[in-house]
Amino acid sequence: MNVELVAIGTELLLGFTVDTNGAEIGRMLADIGVRVTRRTAIADRTEDIRNAVAEALARTRAVIVTGGLGPTRDDITKHTIAELYGVPLDFDEGLWAGLVERYRRAGRVPVESNRTQAEVPRGATVLPNRWGSAAGLWLEDRARGLVVMLPGVPLEMRNLMEHEVVPRFRQRASGTVIRSRTLRTVGVAEAALAEQLGEIERDIAPVTLAYLPQAAGVDLRLTVWDVTASQAEALLAGAAARVMSHAGRAVYGAEREDLAAVVLEAARRRATTIALAESCTGGLVGARLTEIAGSSDVLLGSAVCYSYASKTDVLGVPAEIIAEQGAVSEAVARHMAEGALRRFGGALSVAVTGIAGPGGGTAEKPVGTVWFATAMDGDVRAARTVFFGTRSEVRERAAQTALRLLLERLQEMRER
Amino acid sequence: MNVELVAIGTELLLGFTVDTNGAEIGRMLADIGVRVTRRTAIADRTEDIRNAVAEALARTRAVIVTGGLGPTRDDITKHTIAELYGVPLDFDEGLWAGLVERYRRAGRVPVESNRTQAEVPRGATVLPNRWGSAAGLWLEDRARGLVVMLPGVPLEMRNLMEHEVVPRFRQRASGTVIRSRTLRTVGVAEAALAEQLGEIERDIAPVTLAYLPQAAGVDLRLTVWDVTASQAEALLAGAAARVMSHAGRAVYGAEREDLAAVVLEAARRRATTIALAESCTGGLVGARLTEIAGSSDVLLGSAVCYSYASKTDVLGVPAEIIAEQGAVSEAVARHMAEGALRRFGGALSVAVTGIAGPGGGTAEKPVGTVWFATAMDGDVRAARTVFFGTRSEVRERAAQTALRLLLERLQEMRER
Repeated sequence: MNVELVAIGTELLLGFTVDTNGAEIGRMLADIGVRVTRRTAIADRTEDIRNAVAEALARTRAVIVTGGLGPTRDDITKHTIAELYGVPLDFDEGLWAGLVERYRRAGRVPVESNRTQAEVPRGATVLPNRWGSAAGLWLEDRARGLVVMLPGVPLEMRNLMEHEVVPRFRQRASGTVIRSRTLRTVGVAEAALAEQLGEIERDIAPVTLAYLPQAAGVDLRLTVWDVTASQAEALLAGAAARVMSHAGRAVYGAEREDLAAVVLEAARRRATTIALAESCTGGLVGARLTEIAGSSDVLLGSAVCYSYASKTDVLGVPAEIIAEQGAVSEAVARHMAEGALRRFGGALSVAVTGIAGPGGGTAEKPVGTVWFATAMDGDVRAARTVFFGTRSEVRERAAQTALRLLLERLQEMRER
Repeated sequence: MNVELVAIGTELLLGFTVDTNGAEIGRMLADIGVRVTRRTAIADRTEDIRNAVAEALARTRAVIVTGGLGPTRDDITKHTIAELYGVPLDFDEGLWAGLVERYRRAGRVPVESNRTQAEVPRGATVLPNRWGSAAGLWLEDRARGLVVMLPGVPLEMRNLMEHEVVPRFRQRASGTVIRSRTLRTVGVAEAALAEQLGEIERDIAPVTLAYLPQAAGVDLRLTVWDVTASQAEALLAGAAARVMSHAGRAVYGAEREDLAAVVLEAARRRATTIALAESCTGGLVGARLTEIAGSSDVLLGSAVCYSYASKTDVLGVPAEIIAEQGAVSEAVARHMAEGALRRFGGALSVAVTGIAGPGGGTAEKPVGTVWFATAMDGDVRAARTVFFGTRSEVRERAAQTALRLLLERLQEMRER
């Protein structure tokens, strides 16, 4: 079954509101094997609504419309679609009584304009909305097909989808699903990763592969369409195994898993603790780790040493080394990593010092140059990377790399 | 001038990616009086791309397409649109040389699949992309009109719009504008702010006011439509002045100004330096400040002391005070703020210690309880807040509050 989505609202086109409803409906429908083939956003204008809905119906005979069901003058969805279907609007006394009761419970009285919210296109099924004042509507005929009208407020849309629309769609859907699995990678660029994976698309078919590059790494999304749920699981597991066999070292997690959470879990399984020394990331690595609840059993602390003096005073980096080799250097990174262990205790540390830009670069050390060092059991290792991107991206990539380096050191340790 | 947007990517329809580009382009075009009349999202399928772009061209003769310009197999935008325009793809040696150079500077070598990124539909103008590897393309003919192709990566899209597309569109547009001004507030809840502002909508008409509540504070957006740029400026300035007269103390900046940048600038004007002591924010306050280029002249460092021992060892918080009053307490916050000044030097410090949740709350100290302290010239002041929200929101609000407290202390000092 194919469906198109039409989102109504001038604010969407002006860009003041980002349409998150479309993505959410897409995910809910994919899970029951219903495919969204197109999404359209248009203004609160009668002609635009009529055209967009009619075109979508002509393509798929099934459309979900969001927005324009409120009580104000610019809410014209219902009238326009009733006209398109050639039916009048009837005043629904039951719906009105429910609205009045809803207001009464909140100690309020509905105003005259709320009465339009009790109007229903003749022949439509009312989808009761317990989360707001605009009911959903399900309007269908043989000639045109199905239009589902939902309020644009995300919470109300979501609940009406879950409780009213998805159960009805499930009955019509074929029993198949569209299902995805995501493998998250770090440390290998998109094109290089594609080269590592080679002609894998052929091997994993009918599973498809998409590369989703982000500042912190590339996500690999495997998707399979129009199969049963158990077939989907088997196909995705097989495809994931093939991808792992080519890109295994770069993969750190699945779905929305955060590298910081993976690091914490790896440390926990080894009963070890972590300390940080940050310069150009300015606290980002610590913020990433402490975003995860329960991080305090692993992370002892972070010394964010932005000034030269604090690198010396707090972390014990010899001032003459900073003077000779610069704050962004292998030697300083190594001393910072050791200093973090001395300062906080802990078994493992990582240090980050670099040039996030936009200023401060030289020919020898261009913007994006970052030195890392990890220290564990007296074994200090350093690595340098030059990152592309804005200040913000360089910092994000440096923080992600620091986490990757921690994970690599942890993976060398035995689990307890 | 009317424009349609077409976003390409199966991910958008499956709902794994939320399309933020459409909203951003809408805002940028509104500012030069260009109206987005429709937005369409479709899958990476040749037929769908061709149909959507052809339909959009038939309606407006001007289309901006985002996505599908990368180096991998599913990037088919360029080929499909070249076919629609009946032109071949030429390999652009100059573009390729630029790509090779970009990689070389980072000590890397492009792979074979990157070569497709140097292909250009014959007759198209290349819009150089200094922020990534996929160039934008401007393809126009008399029969069909204009297609602008931009990469889907938000940062690259944004920069190409700003530097290449908006200047060209400006020359074609009518001279009226849709313009907004945003005033950013912190520390006052939405309903309380609305009460302060009273019936202001009547006073500022035809300028409209929208409340945009976010975790870190409420933005107030003023908008005016279809007037000349100078009329817009005058109307918005008048409306902003009225809003400021009611909500002045809560307002810290305009547009996308970051409170962290306001703090740094205030410190700079007073030739003062800042040190931080963070517990529950785990580095977020430092990350916020160091995100701003040039922060190193103000921020000396941050002691992220997550463990009890590090609060004592690094910041000198007496262990018996932690034992008696708990790590989340007024006394600990005060000692942390003083410890940060001792540890890093600096004239002003802020300390944050709290319970971000989801666990760790008690009846006396519920989740969301955060103690703050600022220290300057021996004057240490503490404040407690209980924030609503998830772990992530509590941390974000705590970091924003720490910045607000720094700003308040700075505003008491004389500028130099």
